[in-house]
Amino acid sequence: MTRILLTGFEAFGNTPVNPAESVVRSLDGTAINNAKIVGIVVPNNFFECIDVVRTAIEEVNPELVVMMGEYGGRATITVERIAQNFNDSTRYRLKDNRGVTLQGKPTVPGGPIAYHSTLPLRAIVKAMRSAGVPADISDTAATFCCNHLMYGILHYIATNDLDIRAGWIHLPHLPEVAALPENLGAPSMSRETAALGVRTGIESALQHPQDIDEPILSRLQI
Amino acid sequence: MTRILLTGFEAFGNTPVNPAESVVRSLDGTAINNAKIVGIVVPNNFFECIDVVRTAIEEVNPELVVMMGEYGGRATITVERIAQNFNDSTRYRLKDNRGVTLQGKPTVPGGPIAYHSTLPLRAIVKAMRSAGVPADISDTAATFCCNHLMYGILHYIATNDLDIRAGWIHLPHLPEVAALPENLGAPSMSRETAALGVRTGIESALQHPQDIDEPILSRLQI
Amino acid sequence: MTRILLTGFEAFGNTPVNPAESVVRSLDGTAINNAKIVGIVVPNNFFECIDVVRTAIEEVNPELVVMMGEYGGRATITVERIAQNFNDSTRYRLKDNRGVTLQGKPTVPGGPIAYHSTLPLRAIVKAMRSAGVPADISDTAATFCCNHLMYGILHYIATNDLDIRAGWIHLPHLPEVAALPENLGAPSMSRETAALGVRTGIESALQHPQDIDEPILSRLQI
Amino acid sequence: MTRILLTGFEAFGNTPVNPAESVVRSLDGTAINNAKIVGIVVPNNFFECIDVVRTAIEEVNPELVVMMGEYGGRATITVERIAQNFNDSTRYRLKDNRGVTLQGKPTVPGGPIAYHSTLPLRAIVKAMRSAGVPADISDTAATFCCNHLMYGILHYIATNDLDIRAGWIHLPHLPEVAALPENLGAPSMSRETAALGVRTGIESALQHPQDIDEPILSRLQI
Repeated sequence: MTRILLTGFEAFGNTPVNPAESVVRSLDGTAINNAKIVGIVVPNNFFECIDVVRTAIEEVNPELVVMMGEYGGRATITVERIAQNFNDSTRYRLKDNRGVTLQGKPTVPGGPIAYHSTLPLRAIVKAMRSAGVPADISDTAATFCCNHLMYGILHYIATNDLDIRAGWIHLPHLPEVAALPENLGAPSMSRETAALGVRTGIESALQHPQDIDEPILSRLQI
Repeated sequence: MTRILLTGFEAFGNTPVNPAESVVRSLDGTAINNAKIVGIVVPNNFFECIDVVRTAIEEVNPELVVMMGEYGGRATITVERIAQNFNDSTRYRLKDNRGVTLQGKPTVPGGPIAYHSTLPLRAIVKAMRSAGVPADISDTAATFCCNHLMYGILHYIATNDLDIRAGWIHLPHLPEVAALPENLGAPSMSRETAALGVRTGIESALQHPQDIDEPILSRLQI
Repeated sequence: MTRILLTGFEAFGNTPVNPAESVVRSLDGTAINNAKIVGIVVPNNFFECIDVVRTAIEEVNPELVVMMGEYGGRATITVERIAQNFNDSTRYRLKDNRGVTLQGKPTVPGGPIAYHSTLPLRAIVKAMRSAGVPADISDTAATFCCNHLMYGILHYIATNDLDIRAGWIHLPHLPEVAALPENLGAPSMSRETAALGVRTGIESALQHPQDIDEPILSRLQI
Repeated sequence: MTRILLTGFEAFGNTPVNPAESVVRSLDGTAINNAKIVGIVVPNNFFECIDVVRTAIEEVNPELVVMMGEYGGRATITVERIAQNFNDSTRYRLKDNRGVTLQGKPTVPGGPIAYHSTLPLRAIVKAMRSAGVPADISDTAATFCCNHLMYGILHYIATNDLDIRAGWIHLPHLPEVAALPENLGAPSMSRETAALGVRTGIESALQHPQDIDEPILSRLQI
């Protein structure tokens, strides 16, 4: 049976509940056609997060790895195209959950500048939108732990020549997090809508080993 | 038994589903403590909408009138403070559902420049946020049908000296509407989150004949 | 000779330079056709600011009063349509320059809910745009000192039956203010562009005793 | 004498004036300390633009190549960190000036996924901000001609092992472009402010062969 590894970061910084963790808990153990979703919650720590997901890949032996995190301020689900070999958390005044900050340090010294997601981005976004879930392709996963883990796992898969497709999905704040005073005016998405979007995206990824060749409109990222 | 009149606009323009209509259908007939919600869907037409809600007030005899519409582009529920005696739909390239556009015409010739909502705005927003629903007070309901109906009903209540509190709640796009190509990047809120927010807001309005005297942080509207 | 009173608030809060003050200094003493601009800088204090502008009106005897302030976060010049009889600075965590905060207090107890600007808003915005200056009509001046002063002066003019047209123009941050860490990502406008816009707006106001009857597109305010 | 090649795209799509072209014209021929700026305007066409800048590099023999384009919707100057080997203009409904659209095609088949700018990004942004010009580091140059040219030139420099530092600076709309109806509400920056920022950035790049190691706050890109 096909297995899908679905990972979601735990809470971090001033986000008391991470939508990625909520969606993992919601979809863990469910099936999409003949594929089973195995969900894990990942510690929001530089380098440790990569180890945790690598270990899970070895244990689960998935065909597909879909990693998730929260991207506060974005109004839609964003499917990331690219992860870069660069970390800077000081610019966002963020620390990981062990208090570590990085500024300018690569994830893999001497590694390639970047990896592209191997998920069918246009097909995923098209499917999410058709299901009524606002979504877009993004060309930056920022320079904190999400980009770090996405790079680390794509590098691991590439250097070990594994036959696994992998990529990243960012989720907006949950409503209760956007309702906090420090997030005044921030957009949000309910866990149900986010889970529907992610489930639909995974289904589309399973159906499309190659991406579709249709225009999928994008907002210019600012 | 206390009755609450809850009104929501129907679909209009390029919004195929109005969250206000969805919330009306969700809460119509439900009770909050000893108060019963009577919900009606209102045609999105200048002047006719005022007649429809006036008639409903005469029939329902409510203590509280909570009117709702959609405000595309806003990320949170916004509780409106003020309605002005001024209509301009041409500036938004919008028409009402009969094709009528107004530019600079007052709702009530010779009427007061504006009315303030008589709902306890701070108490409502505080309650919504405590329930995990992003919300804020707004100082503009724009110059289309929402502001028009809000003004019309507050004027009707004032000039007839009715003992009814009334005001306006704006809802973000539903997710499936934000997922349309023409709304690329727009924030959204699920009908469940919106309905929870509105229900919580009504509950708070019932509990607070006078508004609370606490600071409720607001975003500067842009 | 026609005189125009142009007022601009001084620095306040975390704005070390107010674009309104810059534009006053730039245009004070200049002439537009046969009209002369008399500029004054106004203290950013509740009630005192109204007294200062009232006194200036008595001294200058202007035909036109154009008041200005800064609206951080807005990308364009905004010409305000309406001022309301309501103050709340606590919601923005703002104090005036004497440390005073107001929450829910009216500017004029028992006064009308609101006044409309008596400037030709559409004509002004059209002229600014034609001159290459981004501009729009706004339906909220927020609830801090700008709205307060705008209300106070429109009330003074109305209750004294003065033959003076008056209104408010909001300016974005100056670039050097948007470049401060606390304003990360905020839009800005140079003093030259802002001054050109205001000068053009005044010229248009002089030419149009009545507003033009053309659609002027607006962004929905969020 | 040190030479700096400064390139700026011409007008494209619905941008009748490109701020990048304006800044090239403003700084071409000027000197910064002992370095002379040679400015060229680049045709906004896929692949041709790379040829044009390559030829200019061969002719000018610069130590530094600073390429510029317009990024409508951004409020500040953004200095790009990364260019990717991927083009998609259909997602933005954009064509180059010859009417060409690309969807998913790489700039260099088989080339690396991405290149990092070799400019000192933090030093540049710090200097711009100190000069009063709003600026930030960006992690996406989108997937139209700017990213394409940035990738093409960094690839050319890398594969030819040239001792040239190079990177990209994005500029907001000019005010007169933001004032057009199709850009309603868009932020802008005057040519003078943009030119000051670019000049200051180049000066900083000359002073810092290596980037500074200080936190430079960034907005999370949405």
